[in-house]
Amino acid sequence: MALSLAALEHPIVQAPMGGGPSTPALAAAVSEAGGLGFLAAAYKSVDAVRADIEAVQALTDRPFGVNLFAPPGAAADPAAVERYAGTLRGEAERYGVALGAPRHDDDGWAEKLVLVAEARVPVVSFTFGCPPAEVVADLDAEVWVTVTTPAEAGMAVAAGADALVVQGVEAGGHRGSFDGSAPGDIGLLALLALVRAAVDVPLVATGGIATGEAVAAVLAAGAAAAQLGTAFMLCPEAGTSPAHKQALASEADTALTRAFTGRTARGITNRFLREHGADAPSAYPDVHHLTAPIRAAARERGDADGFHLWAGQAHALAEPVPAGELVRRLAGEAREAIARAGS
Amino acid sequence: MALSLAALEHPIVQAPMGGGPSTPALAAAVSEAGGLGFLAAAYKSVDAVRADIEAVQALTDRPFGVNLFAPPGAAADPAAVERYAGTLRGEAERYGVALGAPRHDDDGWAEKLVLVAEARVPVVSFTFGCPPAEVVADLDAEVWVTVTTPAEAGMAVAAGADALVVQGVEAGGHRGSFDGSAPGDIGLLALLALVRAAVDVPLVATGGIATGEAVAAVLAAGAAAAQLGTAFMLCPEAGTSPAHKQALASEADTALTRAFTGRTARGITNRFLREHGADAPSAYPDVHHLTAPIRAAARERGDADGFHLWAGQAHALAEPVPAGELVRRLAGEAREAIARAGS
Repeated sequence: MALSLAALEHPIVQAPMGGGPSTPALAAAVSEAGGLGFLAAAYKSVDAVRADIEAVQALTDRPFGVNLFAPPGAAADPAAVERYAGTLRGEAERYGVALGAPRHDDDGWAEKLVLVAEARVPVVSFTFGCPPAEVVADLDAEVWVTVTTPAEAGMAVAAGADALVVQGVEAGGHRGSFDGSAPGDIGLLALLALVRAAVDVPLVATGGIATGEAVAAVLAAGAAAAQLGTAFMLCPEAGTSPAHKQALASEADTALTRAFTGRTARGITNRFLREHGADAPSAYPDVHHLTAPIRAAARERGDADGFHLWAGQAHALAEPVPAGELVRRLAGEAREAIARAGS
Repeated sequence: MALSLAALEHPIVQAPMGGGPSTPALAAAVSEAGGLGFLAAAYKSVDAVRADIEAVQALTDRPFGVNLFAPPGAAADPAAVERYAGTLRGEAERYGVALGAPRHDDDGWAEKLVLVAEARVPVVSFTFGCPPAEVVADLDAEVWVTVTTPAEAGMAVAAGADALVVQGVEAGGHRGSFDGSAPGDIGLLALLALVRAAVDVPLVATGGIATGEAVAAVLAAGAAAAQLGTAFMLCPEAGTSPAHKQALASEADTALTRAFTGRTARGITNRFLREHGADAPSAYPDVHHLTAPIRAAARERGDADGFHLWAGQAHALAEPVPAGELVRRLAGEAREAIARAGS
């Protein structure tokens, strides 16, 4: 184990956010401020992830983390993906692109594992499943596994995880469930209590946390740290697209959907989500590749109705402040909230 | 206002649980121990509610509360209810009963309002909507309104509510949403943060709270008290049916469903929920009356697959201890958790 969670100056972890928002500048700013920054390796080439890691290492000597998506299970029924593709022809036309080819790949799993080991990344977290015990044992890093149910927590600890990222249903982006077709739906506070009753490793709480009071709450609930994603998406260091930022700052509702990637994720309710949510099969990453050109084109145009606006349920409380300032502010407010509750 | 939340010896409120679990003995035991006990007026005749209130008053001099269901909105489409009735004929046959008549009544709203005023009930809470400002102003009691979104919180405060019961999606039983057809789905911690940003009245946090650490968490998040329902359902003072108690003690999943009452509620997933959840219309209390004979017969037989097993997401952590002991234990554990988080 390369890092103890307890050694963090502030119990604040920046969640890895694939597809743009997570940047080396964001991760470095969070770590420099005394929190723990994270890179998202998903959807990137091995070379691009290596470049990100080197960029963080050039910006800070502090520990940071990299998140990997565990390989998907068996491929989905190609006919189901084909049927879904049929319902998306109008979208392809609207944005002037061809649908992507629905590959069932593993996002460079083996190569990225080698990379994080070679680069001596201090913390490696996994989402969408638990790596085999040999993989966990072989990594010199502190290994975190994302869980959404007490059963997943038990499996992750059995495989040797050093800490668990306990993801409540409030969280933005993908549900980190091991089984993509049966995503956990437990709210963060209930899940923390259930997981604490089941296992005895440090827990990192995530899902809908946007304020110092909420950080204080998960610490009081027994978590070792709070992990925040959406709360960092308006920071100048984040790579969040302008249309996405604008949606986050609104009071729009969020919903869980498979429409964009074939795996359940929480995003702000927009036209694409409303029109395709009911049709989308459980088929990740096939559907991710299928819809990628549409989403890229919509994002490029600034059309917030055509791409995934990942957001946690407290997104309206995100603030456009520098990441380091946000870490310090959250930590200070959390200390005040705990002192107030104790008085 | 007849009672300040801050005057409670312990910041623990027992949630009103209609249909059996809430009893005068349970409410009195919680209040006697320094928490705040609650009676559920729903589904009971005015005389039965009066008897419950008198029973509590005979058992304790301490404050307690009574919860009323706000009157439903416009009646649902009778054809939708009729269609749903058609899908339930097999259930009626299985349990040897006739389906109930799907009335659209208001559960004795006006009479129960008069009753709680005459009986000088210290705290009156409302679920399923906000009473008009005149009703709130006329009540000598402290008035609480259950909310599931920041918008509902704003409406309730505008109507004069003294405190809000902030209900996260983790909660067992009915969603307290004002609009039954659009139930709020926000997790408790995120909802507390959003509501605190929107209004400035004391908040009572509820949904999936079953441990002292979770009580500590909501206090750190800014709530004035925690309200627990499921956690009290195994207490000897509760009127929970044996089959329901057995299901609560298991690790069974819960789900949101309209199958039993026509209004979204969280219960343990059983056969009835699985088979009818997809068909049930938004039609409360029509569907409640329609299914009542089936549910009563299943409960009578101890058949946990045929009636509503309301349960919050942390139900597996409920313990069969006397209610007063539970209040004291939760309060003590909450104090310890806050002290630990502050150190």
